[in-house]
Amino acid sequence: MISSGSPIVVLDSGLGGLTVVRAIRITLPSQNILYFGDTARVPYGSKSAATVTSFVRQIITYLSTYEPKHVVIACNTATALSLKTIQEEFPHLSISGVVEPGAKAAAEASGAGAAPVIGVIGTEATIRSGAYEREIIKYRPDARILCHPTPLLASIVEEGREDNDPLVILALEQYLKPLVQRGVQTLVLGCTHYPVYRGLIERIVGEEVAVIDSADKCAQDVRRILLADGKIAGDDKPKGFLKCFVTDDSPRFARLARRFLDMELDAPVWVSPDELHALSASPLAN
Amino acid sequence: MISSGSPIVVLDSGLGGLTVVRAIRITLPSQNILYFGDTARVPYGSKSAATVTSFVRQIITYLSTYEPKHVVIACNTATALSLKTIQEEFPHLSISGVVEPGAKAAAEASGAGAAPVIGVIGTEATIRSGAYEREIIKYRPDARILCHPTPLLASIVEEGREDNDPLVILALEQYLKPLVQRGVQTLVLGCTHYPVYRGLIERIVGEEVAVIDSADKCAQDVRRILLADGKIAGDDKPKGFLKCFVTDDSPRFARLARRFLDMELDAPVWVSPDELHALSASPLAN
Repeated sequence: MISSGSPIVVLDSGLGGLTVVRAIRITLPSQNILYFGDTARVPYGSKSAATVTSFVRQIITYLSTYEPKHVVIACNTATALSLKTIQEEFPHLSISGVVEPGAKAAAEASGAGAAPVIGVIGTEATIRSGAYEREIIKYRPDARILCHPTPLLASIVEEGREDNDPLVILALEQYLKPLVQRGVQTLVLGCTHYPVYRGLIERIVGEEVAVIDSADKCAQDVRRILLADGKIAGDDKPKGFLKCFVTDDSPRFARLARRFLDMELDAPVWVSPDELHALSASPLAN
Repeated sequence: MISSGSPIVVLDSGLGGLTVVRAIRITLPSQNILYFGDTARVPYGSKSAATVTSFVRQIITYLSTYEPKHVVIACNTATALSLKTIQEEFPHLSISGVVEPGAKAAAEASGAGAAPVIGVIGTEATIRSGAYEREIIKYRPDARILCHPTPLLASIVEEGREDNDPLVILALEQYLKPLVQRGVQTLVLGCTHYPVYRGLIERIVGEEVAVIDSADKCAQDVRRILLADGKIAGDDKPKGFLKCFVTDDSPRFARLARRFLDMELDAPVWVSPDELHALSASPLAN
């Protein structure tokens, strides 16, 4: 039975989705959150739709015993490659992703002028999928959309480099300057890792360019869905809990999670990939 | 039954082990090779020993039906974290790795002077494991060993960047200059991706520093083992075949494999991670 104390599930390939957790905890502080980081199989951004969809299916099957009130696929690659299939496979669960809210916000931020130029950066798989083009076009059929893969950026964030590191600056300049030269007016950060460098990105693209944080927009979308479904009981309750699950229990998670969340974390629960693959073999519970 | 036509298995987290395949095909052209790239779960370099060992165990169990004459763990991380355990678990298979040959070559290249300074670069997991220190010390107990993780380098190679790219040069300078300043005389490329940039690395560290390619030394080690075991029948035979297996069937593999191998490849066989995990659940076949 879903109750007001039922958790929101936030799942990601690794650490990036923690930027979505941070945004949800600001927007909806009393909600309980289960975060799943698939750290044994991270990253998803260079992998195929079939592989990524099977990983997401396993994680949702595993966590469905917690009877979540909502599931957020807080990874742009996983959303782009699997959301539609996963929503069809789990019709009784409320499931949203991170692409549509970012695309909608980009369309809105692009103002009233004709044919706005909207840039999107993301992993190789997110860009190749065309998911952002499809969503943006729904809101702004006249938009010119420039999608650019930035495959190294998530690895740079996960290495823990600060935004004054010459390599971070060079990588962002290499990736972003061609978009600026082509007249981009709005830039979507189409990977939940990227908001870590948001300040630097804004300096490089200049203040005329609106930078859209898909993690932030995703959290606002979750709030909207929960309100519409009557699943928020009021915000006078104590702060919700955050419980993390990982598939690889390495010291990296705790060290880097602090950087994403700005808080200390309890030790995560380790879930063996063997256990997840065994779920693939059995019939779905829904 | 193992025969002279039985294949050599070369396994890796993804693409890097193809530098070992290239070296084996030069050293032992008539040998048949099965290459396994675990592209659905790549990279291993940021993951724990338990996770990486379980992946290697699955792959060897899967390929053992081909009755390989030898198995090479052609990934420094997998060798560092799992070789000893895996050798104990599969006592009937001949299994070698990529760390020991590189360590031995580094010790030999360091000359007769007292207390040579040997540098090692590799993934976070390879460096943290201490595997290179342990192996080098066996041959040169007086060596001063400087180990330095270079976590971004494999991702940079996999992005397909050329060695005249300013970002490649900056990353290598950032990683290598501290080693040069500390007087390194020998440098081990402790990841099978890194030989792709060997020329640039040699320019940055200077010609006084001997650069050791662990992929190349690994191939020579395989030849030594096969000769000692009487498993090479003579080199007047036709060129051996190369058959590839991958866990994620993305267009990346074919595109990047060309860069590693300097040759065209047949389409790889796709092996589902679900199938591999199912092998973990059943008793081992050896």
